[in-house]
Amino acid sequence: MSRVTLNHHTPLVICSNAIRTCWQSQDKSDNGGEKDQELINRVGNKFKHSSTLEHLVYNFTIKCSRAVLQEWSRHRIASLSVKSTRYTLKELKNEDPFELLPEDMERAKKYVVLTDNMAVNNAILSSLEVLRIILVEGVSNDVAKYCLPEAYKTEINWTINARSLQNFLKLRRSSSALWEIRDIADEVFEALPEDHRYLF
Amino acid sequence: MSRVTLNHHTPLVICSNAIRTCWQSQDKSDNGGEKDQELINRVGNKFKHSSTLEHLVYNFTIKCSRAVLQEWSRHRIASLSVKSTRYTLKELKNEDPFELLPEDMERAKKYVVLTDNMAVNNAILSSLEVLRIILVEGVSNDVAKYCLPEAYKTEINWTINARSLQNFLKLRRSSSALWEIRDIADEVFEALPEDHRYLF
Amino acid sequence: MSRVTLNHHTPLVICSNAIRTCWQSQDKSDNGGEKDQELINRVGNKFKHSSTLEHLVYNFTIKCSRAVLQEWSRHRIASLSVKSTRYTLKELKNEDPFELLPEDMERAKKYVVLTDNMAVNNAILSSLEVLRIILVEGVSNDVAKYCLPEAYKTEINWTINARSLQNFLKLRRSSSALWEIRDIADEVFEALPEDHRYLF
Amino acid sequence: MSRVTLNHHTPLVICSNAIRTCWQSQDKSDNGGEKDQELINRVGNKFKHSSTLEHLVYNFTIKCSRAVLQEWSRHRIASLSVKSTRYTLKELKNEDPFELLPEDMERAKKYVVLTDNMAVNNAILSSLEVLRIILVEGVSNDVAKYCLPEAYKTEINWTINARSLQNFLKLRRSSSALWEIRDIADEVFEALPEDHRYLF
Repeated sequence: MSRVTLNHHTPLVICSNAIRTCWQSQDKSDNGGEKDQELINRVGNKFKHSSTLEHLVYNFTIKCSRAVLQEWSRHRIASLSVKSTRYTLKELKNEDPFELLPEDMERAKKYVVLTDNMAVNNAILSSLEVLRIILVEGVSNDVAKYCLPEAYKTEINWTINARSLQNFLKLRRSSSALWEIRDIADEVFEALPEDHRYLF
Repeated sequence: MSRVTLNHHTPLVICSNAIRTCWQSQDKSDNGGEKDQELINRVGNKFKHSSTLEHLVYNFTIKCSRAVLQEWSRHRIASLSVKSTRYTLKELKNEDPFELLPEDMERAKKYVVLTDNMAVNNAILSSLEVLRIILVEGVSNDVAKYCLPEAYKTEINWTINARSLQNFLKLRRSSSALWEIRDIADEVFEALPEDHRYLF
Repeated sequence: MSRVTLNHHTPLVICSNAIRTCWQSQDKSDNGGEKDQELINRVGNKFKHSSTLEHLVYNFTIKCSRAVLQEWSRHRIASLSVKSTRYTLKELKNEDPFELLPEDMERAKKYVVLTDNMAVNNAILSSLEVLRIILVEGVSNDVAKYCLPEAYKTEINWTINARSLQNFLKLRRSSSALWEIRDIADEVFEALPEDHRYLF
Repeated sequence: MSRVTLNHHTPLVICSNAIRTCWQSQDKSDNGGEKDQELINRVGNKFKHSSTLEHLVYNFTIKCSRAVLQEWSRHRIASLSVKSTRYTLKELKNEDPFELLPEDMERAKKYVVLTDNMAVNNAILSSLEVLRIILVEGVSNDVAKYCLPEAYKTEINWTINARSLQNFLKLRRSSSALWEIRDIADEVFEALPEDHRYLF
């Protein structure tokens, strides 16, 4: 199941019309076509009038670990609404026990992001089982969440404009980024409308 | 001719889905209908989780004086592209002279916002004529603009989210706001999609 | 050891002078004294010209769990630099093993925030020990961090202005806030210069 | 009289300590000396971790024309309090009439920024005199301001962090910037503490 879904975006012509406001050249628009696209790239990227790119806004749903959420929320020029452990952790209570078995590791993927290291994955699975028991015993989410492993999955509803997204993709698709966020950043790029990708 | 045009906006369901991410209650959405609208109001306004309102983004075209532009651009959580005097002032060169006659005052409305005071309007018209002559004489826009009266008309392409727009409308529709911005702020409200107005 | 340290702050007179710019009444300042304090409160709070409070900027060091960091970083009008697990997790390698003993629980407090629930604390201690072993075995921080419990301690260097801090303190000192962030928010208030507290 | 005054700034050591939080290397600080300065430049500029530069905050007083204010307020990641024409325009009422004489042009410099073009300066002086008469006649500031020429002087109290100031100085010291803002941007640079200038 895909980790990134694009829910909504502004059409390119809104951005090119914003740019044309500066010179009052609105009558030269080709309604988001080649001429408009070239204009956006020239003014927003080459001439560095980056504020014009802020008129393009995207809304995504992202599924990732809470380790990635820590990094994601550092990008402050964006709006995010996040699955709350304080309200949803009880979801674990209805699960059967998790044992260190391949089928339980598979089942755990609904709740946690696994790595390429078996020892780490086993530690994650054990933590998940202990957390499950703690929740079944009635401990409140606000206390139980302190033993939550950072592999725990979350969901982000994310609104970001093209200028801030350029910064995000540049930093997070880099080879020095954390492996999971790098992969998801690539998927964010792939989820963009085809005629918007040339901007990133 | 209308001073405010709404060019694009995010549908309400994008915002209610963002809110539902927190509790994982996406399956209860009625696709931006009554239930979703009530949810947005309850969470975004009554519970003051105002960040959820940032998922609603509007793009407007605004026609106003440069006096109003001074106030408009104080609202910093928004993106604006503005008709540039540095690039467009030459538009005056093609005009016939402006004399202190009713018909020239009427013609001047293409370029300036008039007030309810005749002495001020006459001063504006005189300034416009002097500026026209200066431009015809070949003075550069960057120097000529220093004698531009603040009544001079401009155009703003404006992207703003619902949280920041709430702040804008609250401050600028107030009786203590400048008369022109107060009127335009009312028109911004009127230009909103009908099912969005209850949020403001 | 204190969880909150105030490292630097802007003097009140900088803010009152900013306000006096609007009316050109700089000569009425009493250099941050009673008259200036009353002015800041009247304009910034009562008249809701909140932008004037942005001239007051504070820099803090905060020590908290990564569970709290998740909430802290949602406050986007602020600047934060955070202790990086990607660069510092190796600190655990030099520790002796952690067993489920009172003295090891005590020793663990250097690395984790404990709760008032023994089962949760035991789970945290066990996770810490497993993580320690995984790091000793040479697993990279970027993979090992996926089994990090959210109780793990971090450090935030935080710059925030008075307007954004008002919003932070209002939301995070509320009775509905997470217990740890509520306590730390109270300490942030206590760490403010005495003559600044009346603003919050 | 200087157009730019630096009223307050954060010491460099606050920024280097923020950076050292990430690696927990606080004990290597030389209290804002050469080592810390080199660190800030390496991390904030060369490694592009620009958010660390946000811990350095400056407060300036700027004197400029309202033409420049239009451009200044486009820099949205900053806080500004501005001399209000709505509250201060009455200052003109106490002036003697302005005639097209060298000594009155000199006297007008208290209120307006003059250019290198005599026709433009004459237009500014005439506008100033008409405005003065209109105010003497009791027209309210909110209406009278529509004939204010953009050369009219204003004062900005401005708080900005180093990251946003880098962007400001890059764009506004450029040869394509408006002449007045370019000169003032140079003065902003000159007003910086000597040990901060290497960052810009």
